[in-house]
Amino acid sequence: MIIDGLGFVETEYFEFDELKLENGEKLSPVRIAYETYGELNADRNNAILICHALSGDAHVAGWHRGDKYPGWWDGMVGPGRAFDTEKYFVISSNVIGGCKGSTGPSSINPVTGKPYGLEFPVVTIKDMVNAQKKLIDHLGVRQLLAVVGGSMGGMQVLQWVVSYKDLVKTAIPIATTAHLSPQGIAFNEVGRRAIMSDPDWNGGDYYGGRAPERGLALARMIGHITYLSDESMREKFGRELKNSERYGYDFSTEFQVESYLHHQGESFVKRFDANSYLYLTKAIDYFDLANGTTLFDAFKGVKARFLVISISSDWLYPPYQSREIVMALTANEIDVSHVEIKSGYGHDAFLLETGQLTHVITNSLQKQRVQDLMIEREPLVMHEKMQMKEAAKRMIEGEFTHLPIGSRDGRLIGIITAWDIANAVANGYNLVEEILTEEVVTAYSDELIGAAAKRMEKHNVSSLPVVTTDNRVVGIITSDCISRLIAGDERRNGNPET
Amino acid sequence: MIIDGLGFVETEYFEFDELKLENGEKLSPVRIAYETYGELNADRNNAILICHALSGDAHVAGWHRGDKYPGWWDGMVGPGRAFDTEKYFVISSNVIGGCKGSTGPSSINPVTGKPYGLEFPVVTIKDMVNAQKKLIDHLGVRQLLAVVGGSMGGMQVLQWVVSYKDLVKTAIPIATTAHLSPQGIAFNEVGRRAIMSDPDWNGGDYYGGRAPERGLALARMIGHITYLSDESMREKFGRELKNSERYGYDFSTEFQVESYLHHQGESFVKRFDANSYLYLTKAIDYFDLANGTTLFDAFKGVKARFLVISISSDWLYPPYQSREIVMALTANEIDVSHVEIKSGYGHDAFLLETGQLTHVITNSLQKQRVQDLMIEREPLVMHEKMQMKEAAKRMIEGEFTHLPIGSRDGRLIGIITAWDIANAVANGYNLVEEILTEEVVTAYSDELIGAAAKRMEKHNVSSLPVVTTDNRVVGIITSDCISRLIAGDERRNGNPET
Repeated sequence: MIIDGLGFVETEYFEFDELKLENGEKLSPVRIAYETYGELNADRNNAILICHALSGDAHVAGWHRGDKYPGWWDGMVGPGRAFDTEKYFVISSNVIGGCKGSTGPSSINPVTGKPYGLEFPVVTIKDMVNAQKKLIDHLGVRQLLAVVGGSMGGMQVLQWVVSYKDLVKTAIPIATTAHLSPQGIAFNEVGRRAIMSDPDWNGGDYYGGRAPERGLALARMIGHITYLSDESMREKFGRELKNSERYGYDFSTEFQVESYLHHQGESFVKRFDANSYLYLTKAIDYFDLANGTTLFDAFKGVKARFLVISISSDWLYPPYQSREIVMALTANEIDVSHVEIKSGYGHDAFLLETGQLTHVITNSLQKQRVQDLMIEREPLVMHEKMQMKEAAKRMIEGEFTHLPIGSRDGRLIGIITAWDIANAVANGYNLVEEILTEEVVTAYSDELIGAAAKRMEKHNVSSLPVVTTDNRVVGIITSDCISRLIAGDERRNGNPET
Repeated sequence: MIIDGLGFVETEYFEFDELKLENGEKLSPVRIAYETYGELNADRNNAILICHALSGDAHVAGWHRGDKYPGWWDGMVGPGRAFDTEKYFVISSNVIGGCKGSTGPSSINPVTGKPYGLEFPVVTIKDMVNAQKKLIDHLGVRQLLAVVGGSMGGMQVLQWVVSYKDLVKTAIPIATTAHLSPQGIAFNEVGRRAIMSDPDWNGGDYYGGRAPERGLALARMIGHITYLSDESMREKFGRELKNSERYGYDFSTEFQVESYLHHQGESFVKRFDANSYLYLTKAIDYFDLANGTTLFDAFKGVKARFLVISISSDWLYPPYQSREIVMALTANEIDVSHVEIKSGYGHDAFLLETGQLTHVITNSLQKQRVQDLMIEREPLVMHEKMQMKEAAKRMIEGEFTHLPIGSRDGRLIGIITAWDIANAVANGYNLVEEILTEEVVTAYSDELIGAAAKRMEKHNVSSLPVVTTDNRVVGIITSDCISRLIAGDERRNGNPET
């Protein structure tokens, strides 16, 4: 066992008073289990949120002390990995309704002092996202550079960009759908029915007694078949027998594939709560982004750009369901790329094909534009005889070291720095026009951040006013954020072995 | 309710002493439930055997008194239908291990006087076919003009042509495979586990008590999802709710597709035995025609011609599994046609697409050749001074009205009829050469039966010697058999509305 990548990490907890739910009820109090990796930059705009699937949790990457395995997407998250923790502040949290530290049906119901069981309200993907929003605010994140997730995690991604249009810069939904198919609902319902048919389930009130392990194991076995492909099962198991060369002519576990499924079922019941399985599959069934309108309408006004990833052999969330998302986005003139990962692993490929995923996601994240990382800021509007004191005051209030000065129509006419003001004091100048630097290095809002970073380096400045093509000031971009994003690449390019 | 097609039919029963099974055990006694439609012709060579799938039975077509629905493939079997009961003698039987009248786990174990339960031996597809062979013999069938079946029925078809190479003329396996895929095994195992996890299953010993209905319903629900396609479920159910326009935010049955599955599960438990479900799925899992060799080897020496039918949207037995069969047959230079039915219905299309199936099967059956229907018969070898008495004796022994006379090397040199002999007696002739008709109308063994029938009609004869291209006699074909096969077509062509 090599503890590489992020090394040891720990789950943290955030509690808040109350969450209003889609069904009209309130959940109170709400606890969110979460992990973060990397550091939030000073501009608080380098955060990436990772959303987990049905059986996932907040422990995306790194190692918990004593564990045999790292987090569920460790290959994707860490220094130098697709979600490079030297560049990004990566956040993940357990969904509400789950059983991995966030409030769910196994949590104590404050009204009764006992576990909720079926008294827990039915939560939706939207409710999960709203709870995550509280966490994001709590962490002081100003924007989400990206929201990413596969399967149920992908549904959360789609809900994020619709619920919080101004917050998300890039959306990366993987192997998911904008509304679960009836086939998907059918498989979920059979799983739920397996749990609810287990006498140990006891109407959901089994905490402290025997858990409905047979039912939950069955549900997991059904689910697991849908996560693999016919092809991958043939390659992995074929018709191999487990312990014998001949048929036993009895009902013991005989084929390798049976043994594998039983193992999946048995290990799952040790780590998952049956009621959470009911609640989360129900949330998945209910997910329908169009919500009575059309998918085209649902994406109206969405500002994020998209990287939609599907998997060629995924028959649970087949590629046509990703293409449906892509078409609705394109019809809304939203910037979208669609990559279909060629893989025989089926739905599970979103966890397994880290090589291909790293390639397409890294490429996409490197295409961040200046507008994705700038701080929106209006310039100080210049008027005749503007006093230096007015500029200094604005500078101190906003904690800026650079202050763009604009004309009445917002066009950039110059910049002043703290150094300029000190110089003015030393030399007895009093008017802004006396110290204004009119030749200003700028960044364009839609250029790639790499280009802006090079310009900063070349001119040895720590921030650039961001302007549109007609020279209107829309914000400012700082070297703190940019250098962090660029540094990782340069380090790796210089020494590809690390 | 219109009682059309075959009208009312009844299930019959055939019992025999003992069947030796693949696992080395013996099943004794064995009862087979069966139905037959149409009439066996005098040559006993117009029989077609239909094999049923997992949940099917001997009641393929026609109506049982009091039933709301006809047999499970009624659209395919009856006067003027694909398996035209005016031409063919159609046989179907319930498989052993089943629960529809043939001996299975719910039958009485003669050793204990109680139902077998898990004491019933594990039977295989080969065992089922061997039991059917006993029935075929009992019915006096000399050859099977065709053996046909879908899904598990198709497995029996494949086993028939391999186990009884000389008996089957045409094999029509539909939506099936030569060996179940690990995905198929996985679904079956989850279904079995659902039954065996139900406390009411009680180790298989539940007869007279509560049957494991929850487990069996679950198994059926799982199975049913695999019989449909993603596409057909979207078209049939979409995301429609059952009774409401809004989500109920609870765990009741809410979506149409859930309601449909529950109905399937609930109605299945009323008509099927849970232990039979275990045994039949196990037989399906075990099925592997290659049996340790290759599929190419398995088909060596097979004499039947094949019509292999797959279904475009079938993901349980996908078309590639039919192509695998076709390739192994082709490599053995066996006459094979492959038709892929274009249908969105998934695996279930083999029950639903009766229009397309009728078209391809009728076409195939009309391509019966003379050799498929002739009675193999060696000619009487002519020698000098052969006495008329010798010919008359052979004629009476074989109950022939026409006796082909051949040379020593088997070539046809003439024919004599009962009329010729009567004529000889009247005129005092004594030698065969005196009454021999040397100009003989013949049929070629590989010509289509339609052509031979026309020749018979033109020359007003009731049988034709069948010869190879070098004029060797290989058999005889009679008008009884042929006219029956042709009559139906002419009737329909004359009045297409009937």
